[in-house]
Amino acid sequence: MLSPSRALQLSTAFLCISNAVAFPAASTPSAQKGVVIVVPPVSNDTGIKMIPDNAHPFQAPGPNDQRGPCPGLNTLANHGYLPRNGIASFEQIITAVREGFNMEHDLAGALAGFAMLARGNAFIDLVSIGGESPLVPVLPGAIDGPNPPGGISKHGRFEGDVSMTRQDAAIGDNVHFQDSLYDELLLYTGRFGDDSPVTGNGSIVTTKVMQEFKFARFVEDQVKDPVLQYHVGRFTLSYGEAAFVLNFFANGTDGTLSTPVMGSFFRNQTFPDDWYRRSSPGDINLIGEGVDQILSAHPIAPGANDANGNYVLDAPLNTCSAVYFNLAVQNLPASYSKATGILKQNVNTLIQAIAKPFGCPAVFPTGPSGV
Amino acid sequence: MLSPSRALQLSTAFLCISNAVAFPAASTPSAQKGVVIVVPPVSNDTGIKMIPDNAHPFQAPGPNDQRGPCPGLNTLANHGYLPRNGIASFEQIITAVREGFNMEHDLAGALAGFAMLARGNAFIDLVSIGGESPLVPVLPGAIDGPNPPGGISKHGRFEGDVSMTRQDAAIGDNVHFQDSLYDELLLYTGRFGDDSPVTGNGSIVTTKVMQEFKFARFVEDQVKDPVLQYHVGRFTLSYGEAAFVLNFFANGTDGTLSTPVMGSFFRNQTFPDDWYRRSSPGDINLIGEGVDQILSAHPIAPGANDANGNYVLDAPLNTCSAVYFNLAVQNLPASYSKATGILKQNVNTLIQAIAKPFGCPAVFPTGPSGV
Repeated sequence: MLSPSRALQLSTAFLCISNAVAFPAASTPSAQKGVVIVVPPVSNDTGIKMIPDNAHPFQAPGPNDQRGPCPGLNTLANHGYLPRNGIASFEQIITAVREGFNMEHDLAGALAGFAMLARGNAFIDLVSIGGESPLVPVLPGAIDGPNPPGGISKHGRFEGDVSMTRQDAAIGDNVHFQDSLYDELLLYTGRFGDDSPVTGNGSIVTTKVMQEFKFARFVEDQVKDPVLQYHVGRFTLSYGEAAFVLNFFANGTDGTLSTPVMGSFFRNQTFPDDWYRRSSPGDINLIGEGVDQILSAHPIAPGANDANGNYVLDAPLNTCSAVYFNLAVQNLPASYSKATGILKQNVNTLIQAIAKPFGCPAVFPTGPSGV
Repeated sequence: MLSPSRALQLSTAFLCISNAVAFPAASTPSAQKGVVIVVPPVSNDTGIKMIPDNAHPFQAPGPNDQRGPCPGLNTLANHGYLPRNGIASFEQIITAVREGFNMEHDLAGALAGFAMLARGNAFIDLVSIGGESPLVPVLPGAIDGPNPPGGISKHGRFEGDVSMTRQDAAIGDNVHFQDSLYDELLLYTGRFGDDSPVTGNGSIVTTKVMQEFKFARFVEDQVKDPVLQYHVGRFTLSYGEAAFVLNFFANGTDGTLSTPVMGSFFRNQTFPDDWYRRSSPGDINLIGEGVDQILSAHPIAPGANDANGNYVLDAPLNTCSAVYFNLAVQNLPASYSKATGILKQNVNTLIQAIAKPFGCPAVFPTGPSGV
């Protein structure tokens, strides 16, 4: 069972940001073919291994390929661990994050399930890792409103404020890599990071770096973003991104994360040379501990800016897991209750998958539609 | 009169790096029309002023426009202070570096003259700020060999080793901005730079940053570059680049250089928002003092790697100015002595212009041709 603080955790450096590009609605819901979602079995291919293998060379995305706010998912797509067009199924995401990053099965299932219900089409089992796509049409019966799913780039539900390398949606570009923010991360790495005889002074990114950088990012956005939303779900994903980077981008050989490796993922969205995925599956507890450690240097609490620009703390949520409740119950649309047939079956499968690593009973969503 | 150490100085962050792209020789020397080079009068438009003005908006270079190793010159061309095609005359360079950066007249003349004699066509008064161009054909009589001038991107004479943001020619790309090196500069800035309430912690680039970064770059390239050449001319230009960045890229309003401003020049090659050129002309003494300060933390001396990878110090040059002698006498081709007519007149004008800020008598070049 997870502690309340630990249970906040949900790793999502993968899961990060958004602004939808307008696409004409491609196929009508009536033309869609439902696909029954099945949680894949737990794999035992979970040891250290060099990534990518020969079957997954880097290939730059084409103009119609979707890429979005999450460097991990973008990297997987650029190497074909995810479909190169950036449109993926629940099962493909679980397999890809294990294969590429050795993410543990239940954590991967929760993240993939959350992405699908928040920003995908659970009837046809497809979600865009970037923005809207004609391949991911409006849900049957327009159950989540008349617009196509936004992909994980769409702000709200999934993508949120105080990212590491994307701006808040209200400030600027919340989808693409921002040099200005990454430069800031490098300044903090130079100041607080460790030295390396191989990659140079201050080139090893540590928990201390993330402690100072994440706090600085919060302070900045609290001032700059008049509509800052940092409720417990997003708050935890935001710190979870930093924990994800430390634990999943580090080279599995020695567990250290150097700036050239980090730059390969963030800037070039490609696996670094001579890089190995971590040697054991990274689960929700790993990310939870990372979040706790990063927060411990400058403890702040979930909240949001009010109309006067003051940061107002949230009342605590008295639930099994505040982060689970905020993300999967309060954020996801209640209108999924109107689903029938395959969609209904898939929604139930995904709700169970999201709840699982939190050790909480699954609760049906109560949030607004079409947002 | 400059001290021997001071007299080393020649600011060239402008002047930096190269690899020639093969172009067909466009016009034969016989078709060229000579242009008499005249040193422009000293301007008294040398105060602080916002750059760019409305007449000089940023415009990205087209596929045939030349850009090269020097962010300052590239920025001037991207704003039309230099011709946007990247092919400039001696007079245009002097005017542009004053207009955009407030570089003092004699220093600008020496740099422009050196660029023209090293890598341009002094008969038609044109040099490429990037690589070879059909607009800058072989010199009359192929006086510097049968190939067209290489532009300042061409390694040797002008472009050299241990740059800040370009690799040594023997290691990698010596012309274009390298994220890996700039990232390293940011790590050093984070560690040794000053804090700013506006641009953030560790975001102000200082002499201390350059002291540590330039030394680290030397140590790296001494190990990695089997043919490292760091003789007194290039050595001084290399440290002069760092002094140039601190003194000419800093905002003229308060004289500080922040990482967003530095990134604007290095990465985007555009003048930053709300940026003012320095409030007084920056001359050879300013750069000389900067070089001395940067070197003082980790004093090293000119030399080169031998066949075993050992760094071998040069014997001192017993001349009016070692840097002048190495760059303008030993490096430039002796074959200019065969020039006649307008070319002869221009060579003499430029030789005088190079010698002037060093306070040394002009000496005719003695170096090899066609290199």
